[in-house]
Parts: sequence; structure tokens; C-alpha cells
Amino acid sequence: MTKTNPGRFFEDYRLGETIRHAVPRTIAEGERALYHALYPQRFALHSSDAFALDCGLDGAPLDDLLVFHTVFGKTVPDISLNAVANLGYAEARFHRSVWPGDTLRAESEVIGLKQNSNGRSGVVWVRTRGLNQAGETVLSYVRWVMVRKRDEDAPAPETAIPELAHAVEPGELEIPEGLDFLGYDFALAGEPHRARDYAVGERIDHVDGVTIEEAEHMLATRLWQNTAKVHFDATHRDDGRRLIYGGHVISLARALSFNGLANAQVVAAINAGAHANPCFAGDTVRAWSEVRAVERLRNDVGALRLRTVATRGEAFALTGEDGKYLPEVLLDLDYWVLMPR
Amino acid sequence: MTKTNPGRFFEDYRLGETIRHAVPRTIAEGERALYHALYPQRFALHSSDAFALDCGLDGAPLDDLLVFHTVFGKTVPDISLNAVANLGYAEARFHRSVWPGDTLRAESEVIGLKQNSNGRSGVVWVRTRGLNQAGETVLSYVRWVMVRKRDEDAPAPETAIPELAHAVEPGELEIPEGLDFLGYDFALAGEPHRARDYAVGERIDHVDGVTIEEAEHMLATRLWQNTAKVHFDATHRDDGRRLIYGGHVISLARALSFNGLANAQVVAAINAGAHANPCFAGDTVRAWSEVRAVERLRNDVGALRLRTVATRGEAFALTGEDGKYLPEVLLDLDYWVLMPR
Amino acid sequence: MTKTNPGRFFEDYRLGETIRHAVPRTIAEGERALYHALYPQRFALHSSDAFALDCGLDGAPLDDLLVFHTVFGKTVPDISLNAVANLGYAEARFHRSVWPGDTLRAESEVIGLKQNSNGRSGVVWVRTRGLNQAGETVLSYVRWVMVRKRDEDAPAPETAIPELAHAVEPGELEIPEGLDFLGYDFALAGEPHRARDYAVGERIDHVDGVTIEEAEHMLATRLWQNTAKVHFDATHRDDGRRLIYGGHVISLARALSFNGLANAQVVAAINAGAHANPCFAGDTVRAWSEVRAVERLRNDVGALRLRTVATRGEAFALTGEDGKYLPEVLLDLDYWVLMPR
Repeated sequence: MTKTNPGRFFEDYRLGETIRHAVPRTIAEGERALYHALYPQRFALHSSDAFALDCGLDGAPLDDLLVFHTVFGKTVPDISLNAVANLGYAEARFHRSVWPGDTLRAESEVIGLKQNSNGRSGVVWVRTRGLNQAGETVLSYVRWVMVRKRDEDAPAPETAIPELAHAVEPGELEIPEGLDFLGYDFALAGEPHRARDYAVGERIDHVDGVTIEEAEHMLATRLWQNTAKVHFDATHRDDGRRLIYGGHVISLARALSFNGLANAQVVAAINAGAHANPCFAGDTVRAWSEVRAVERLRNDVGALRLRTVATRGEAFALTGEDGKYLPEVLLDLDYWVLMPR
Repeated sequence: MTKTNPGRFFEDYRLGETIRHAVPRTIAEGERALYHALYPQRFALHSSDAFALDCGLDGAPLDDLLVFHTVFGKTVPDISLNAVANLGYAEARFHRSVWPGDTLRAESEVIGLKQNSNGRSGVVWVRTRGLNQAGETVLSYVRWVMVRKRDEDAPAPETAIPELAHAVEPGELEIPEGLDFLGYDFALAGEPHRARDYAVGERIDHVDGVTIEEAEHMLATRLWQNTAKVHFDATHRDDGRRLIYGGHVISLARALSFNGLANAQVVAAINAGAHANPCFAGDTVRAWSEVRAVERLRNDVGALRLRTVATRGEAFALTGEDGKYLPEVLLDLDYWVLMPR
Repeated sequence: MTKTNPGRFFEDYRLGETIRHAVPRTIAEGERALYHALYPQRFALHSSDAFALDCGLDGAPLDDLLVFHTVFGKTVPDISLNAVANLGYAEARFHRSVWPGDTLRAESEVIGLKQNSNGRSGVVWVRTRGLNQAGETVLSYVRWVMVRKRDEDAPAPETAIPELAHAVEPGELEIPEGLDFLGYDFALAGEPHRARDYAVGERIDHVDGVTIEEAEHMLATRLWQNTAKVHFDATHRDDGRRLIYGGHVISLARALSFNGLANAQVVAAINAGAHANPCFAGDTVRAWSEVRAVERLRNDVGALRLRTVATRGEAFALTGEDGKYLPEVLLDLDYWVLMPR
């Protein structure tokens, strides 16, 4: 039994160390098709090679969140197998497009450590990078989790808390190489709205709902080679329920957001994300968005900073009088998208 | 909320207008694999590049119904989002093969309008074309739906009812470019029966049954980017059930028909189709066929006009004494297939 | 109704005859993606083209069990449609790698026949070969099944029972052409253990459990074009349950075995396999392995003979005091894997 991976505990992390995560993964047209079967995904840039060619690319790049999930999945055995809680994301930036046939691997640097006052667990901050087969960074993000200690008597490390940006600056957003929205076909894309048609504070109801089945979230989460037991093993929790991978809800919300944000072709950055309440099979997921900022990146490319909230209840639910998330809120995501200006 | 698509209502259609549907879609090997996972699909021409090469093609074309569903899915946001009923299909012809990597888009011309006497809805006829990235028509069909009015007081359009053929004529059936059945390997294809071995009036029980799960029909329907709420949202109907996309039943019936029609390699046309009763998860779908016509198209290629009926009950169910479909009948499809003569 | 395939009965088999199975199948990147969605598959050689290139191959070959299931599926309509029981496997050898885009077909030679004393059924032994589009054998195995007679009065054939090896000899194991483990990256592969780090008799608990859904096993089994009714039709058994294809459990167990056997990159042979008890949706499958032999094939390549047992209960379940499999045992598989030495 010594040959199986028990995962890392809090005292196993060293500030500054880099962990190379296992199992590189080639993602190709099959993963693209599955992404379209698992999520109601309609953004034209990721759906159509012809549309992407007309936008100056060599073909349809793989969906940004497909890249995120693949990189994230690689980190689970080293970062979150013994995690008690997934505390947050920050500074996620998509640096370059990923194409069918690319192979992704991941590395994480430990950038922060803080033992909890109870002495039984601690918080670990890592900066994770996803790399393609040429060694180029395609994605980077910071994530922090609460991890149990194996041995409560293990000494506490020196506390180091990284300084993290509240949001990626517009100037840091990367426009995919070659992207050109000058000849953009709004009719083919599905909606007429440009970046400058959106107003700060505007709220958009994405209208549609999707009821989730066990088979669907497990197919997705396995596809990302995410090994967290709670998603797959109905005997793991006392209530016999499988917890749905938070990233599954992110992808559902993003896909639903097509209705009202059809031209938000590229996810350029994720500023923050909270999985407010657990999601289970049988939940019907809806989403709404609020525009937080509208920026001009280039004459043809604008950026929207969005808050997209996924709920299992009615539209526009968020927080109660106590300032806490309402029980029907599943996800509160703060991110940047690119669209024709 | 003004940015989301509410769908068109009856008074939004103009006779003669052409609607370009959104979101072109590249379909490739991933969609082919999913088609084989979703339906018990065994027709050799679509299963094997090697078999297709031996039939004169450059490789296995994508399944004809996969093409149909992809094109149909594109039309939903513009044609049937506010549809009360899906009334019929006619004159569906598959004009040329679609290959992995092709990008499909769709256009519909409004060819008929008739307001209902209740003034609350009307019937819209459209002729839809699916086009590949070169702008070539790969599929065309007529469909008519009953659509609600937004405003009951909106004036009725002039009534225009198109004349539609009861069936595509044998001379109009397109043989895929390059197709050659002279060296056809019946053993590899699975059955010895040629077109001329079938007799008009002959009935074939396709024997097998498939019980449908929610996850399966939703994966399929999402893959076709069909956005109709009733297929995905368990809160949409009062009974909490999700209606299965009629095309899912068409593909199931076609795949089941392999058993007895293994050499019916190509669907060349659909003359008519009725979704006789709704299909739900948990239903076990069976199918039977009746031969309506046997035609010689070329020395090596014959055509069969088939009625294939999908049921959730016993074989050969169809209509009751009142001439109406029995409650166990799901689909009544009238179509042409090509097979070695 | 005479056109549908009723399957073969015991008296339809002739010693020495070769049956060419129908429906060749091209397997490509889409099937690879689905394999990763259906099973928690993480072996790096099959997950990453880049990793496979570093191991001397031209890219990631398709998973060995994906090849097994595809070949096996082709044989079902001719071998086991009327089978009462699936009795065993032997001498399964993987002869050469299968690559995305290859087309597989299958042939079976009848190598043994023995009518049962009750006169109502008999045992049929076949040696099946899977062939690629160049006619090269990629897989061969012996399987025997108990098949019903159509006519109890049909005369019994002369009894012929083939001699089968208890296990494939290490010298018969094929190392994939070009495979080179000299520069193997253990960190990327996920574990540090070489073949010589394993001891005969060592037991490994693979820890994780996967709860199976109906949609998942049906998607998988359809993907292999396996037509056995019991897997798909909930009305087929009196208890309304669908029996899960035994190969689905094999693939689940193999994928789970990553945890402790991450470097067992290649399945080279299957010596024997017993489906000890039926598996149904809702079962949570776990697995454990015992090392039966450790062999040196080449300086860089070692082989492990493994017994991997899949259970729906606790770890290390196997047989009771009566020597029979405990009811929680689903699979007992005896096979050879290749790993860096």
C-alpha cells in the first residue's frame, strides 16, 4: 500500500518549491467535441474553424475553460487531495491559444503558507502554470486551499502570505496572436452587441436553465483527469451524494452566458471565483451577469470585466441581508472577456 | 435583459425573407465518435474509413443524420424557440457528403405563412439549407411549425401555403460523388441483402431495444447546439420531465434499423416525419420498417423508400381503430436510403 | 423478419471454420477522448503525444483495452448473441500498437466444441484476431462461451477441447515497436516505481472508487459497437436491470490501478479473466492488485504479471471459505503489463 499516492499534507509544502505535476495530456478534436456535448457551448470562435479563420486565427482554438480544467486537473493529486476547502483563485491569465493536438502539462510554485491557529491545518498558496509541448506558458493562476496536516505536532512554517491583485489590469490582458475582429460577422456569431454597447452596472439574465445529471459531471471531470474522490464515489460522503466539480459549474455558466454575451469570444483572465454553495446532480443551473468594466484594448478589440453568477434558483439571486451568499448561489465569478469593440 | 434573444414570434416572419442562422460549426472525428457512443450505429460506410475507401470515397463521410441534426440545431433559436408544435418535414435532400473538418452553417427562407383562426398563433413554413465552408449546399429541407404571436393584435399576414411534394422523386436522389458499390463487401457490411432482395410491403422487425437515459439525450442535443429549453431544463414543464429531441429518436431508429437493413448505407432523402408522441427518459425504444418502394438508380446503386416507425412498446404498433397513432408510437418516418443493388 | 440476424446457435459452429465479423471500425482521436471521459484513465503513454514521443513512439497509441473492446464488440453478433455464459479468456496478446485513424476488423476461428450433457447447449472456443487496415494482427485471444442450441435434436459435434496456456510466457510478450524507456520521466508519469521495485506477492490497494451510472456504461458499450441486448434494454431482464458489459469493469479496474501502478504503461497480454459477479449501475467499483511475477524483458523494459481484482465492496475481497468468489467481487483479471525496469 506504500505505492499509492496519499497526497500531500500541509507540512509537506515548502515556500518557493516548484511541483511538477504528473501526466501530460494531449487535447484534440475529441475533447472539443465532448466540450460541446457537455456544455451548451455556442461561442462561434470555438465552434467553427471557418469563423476563426475569418478572425485571423489558424482555426478554432480550444475553449479557454477546457484549458483551465485540464491544467487544474493535473494539480489535484499534489495540491488538493487532502484539501479541506478550496479558498480562492486570483490572477488567472490566458497567455496564448491552445490548439487541437497540443500537449499540456502543469507546474505549481508554492508562494504562500500559513498554518491555522487550530494547528490541524493550514493554507497553501500556489501559482500554477500550464505549459504546452514547446514549454510555453498558456495559462497561469494563483489558487489557495486549506490542507490538513498529517501530524498535528509538525512545526508550523514561517507565515508567508502573497500579495495578490484584486483584478488583472486591462493592460495585462493578452489578445490571442493573430486575432482580428475587423471583419467580424455579428450575424453568424449570434448577436449584434459590441463591447461598447455594454454599460457598467448593466445586468444580463442568461435565461436558460440546465438540469445536471450524475453521468454528465463525472464524464467532464474525468475528462480533465481530476482525481478528487468526492466527484466520483457515492460512498465517500455520509449523505451518498457526489459533489460536482466547481469547474463544471464555471463552464455551464460561461456557456449559458452566450445568451446576451454571444460576442464574448475569449476568456482572457479570471480575477476571482467563489464556489458559494455545493452543486449536486438534479440541480437546474441558471446564470446572470453584471458588467463591471468596459475597456478598449485595441481599435477592434474591447474587454468586459464581468461578474457571472450561477444559481440553482431564480435570476439575480446573490447575497442575503447578512451579506452572505444565498443558498441558491453556486458560483460568483469575476473575469475578463474579449469581444469586438 | 434586452440583450438576450427572446426568439421570433409569428408576426416577426416575412414571406420570402432569408434568415442566416448563427454559430457555424466544425464537425470532425470527435463528433463522429460521439455519434457512435450515443446511438448503436453500425453502418459500415460511416464506421470505417477503409470500407469507405473501398466504396470509392476518400474516407468515411459523417453520418447523414449527424449533418441533419447540426443544421437543424442552428435553426432552433430563429424558428422554433417559441414554437407550440413541430408540424412536419418535407423534401429533405442530402446533396453532398460532409467530411470530418467541414464547417456547417444554415439559412432558412420563409416560404409560407398562415395565421391560425384563433389569432394567437400561426404556421410558418421554412426551407432550410445547410452549407459547408465552401458555400455548397449539403442538405435542404422544408419544415413547418406553429409559432405563438407576441401580440395577438398584430395583423395577420397574407396566407401563403407552399406546395410540397409528398415524396422526393427517385430521380432527385443524389448519389454521393465517387460512390461505387461494384466491389461492395457484404460480409464486412454485416448482411447479404441487396436492394433488389427487398419487396414492396415487406416489414422488418429491427428487434433490439434501447432504454434512454437523461444524460444521453442531453449530450446529443447539446452536441447539435439545439437550444430548446424543454430538452434540458427539468423545471420547464409542470411534470418535471424533459422532452427528448425528436431527432434523437430518429437517430436511434435509424441505428436500430441496421438489423435487417445493414446495407442501407446512405440516407438520401426524408419525405416526411411525424413525432407521434413525446419520448422521455426511461422509455425503451424499438423500431420496425416497411418497404414502400424499391428503385434502380444505377447498375450498382438501388434506393429503398422506407417507413420506419419507432415505438416504446411492441413491434409493429402504428394506428388504432380511429386511424390515430397508438400512444406507444414515437416516430413515423418516410425516407429514402441507398444500398447496393 | 427473415432479414434480421438471429445470431448463431451451438449447432451452427464448425470446428476449424473462420468467421469474418462485420463492420470494420476506424478509431481515432474522438474515441481516445471518450475513453478518457468514460474511465479515470491517466497512463501517460496513452494520455500524451509528447510523452509517447519521448518514449520513442510516433505519438500516443490508442489504449490497449480500447483496442480489445473494439475487437471484442465485433465478435458479439456472431459469437455471443445467444450465449448463456461467458466462460473465459486466454492467450490474449497485443501484437502491435493501434494509432488514431487505424481501422480495425476481426476474425474468429472455431478451435473447440463440446456439447453439454443436457443436450441443450454447448461450449464454443474461438481464437479471435483483430486486424488493422493493412491486414496486420494487432490483437489475438481465445474466448469460450456457452451457447444455446436452436434445435435440441441437432446431433452433437465431435468434442474438441483446445489446449490453452495458463499464462502467456514472458518471452512471448511483444514490446511495441520503437518503445524506449531509457529516458523515461517518472515525475511526469506520476510515480517513481520501476518494475524491479515490485515484489512477487505484493498487494496494492488502488484506493479510489467510482460509482457507475447507466448512461456511462451504455455510452462505452455502444462505442465498442457491442450489440448484446442485456446492456441496453431495461425490459430484457425480469428485474429491469441492465447488466454492465464485463469489459467496462476491466477498463475501470485498469484505470483505477494507476494509483500504485502508474508506470504500467502497456497491457501486453491477458492470461485469464473471470467476471465473478454481475455489475450494475449504482455499484461503486474499487480495485486491488497482487504482483504474480516480475520479469526482465530488456534492459529498459520490465514486465509485471498482475492479478487485478475489481470489487464493489471493501479492498482485498476475493474468495470465501468455500473457495468461491465473494459476492462483492466483480472481476478477477490475470495479465501482463510493461513498465520501465
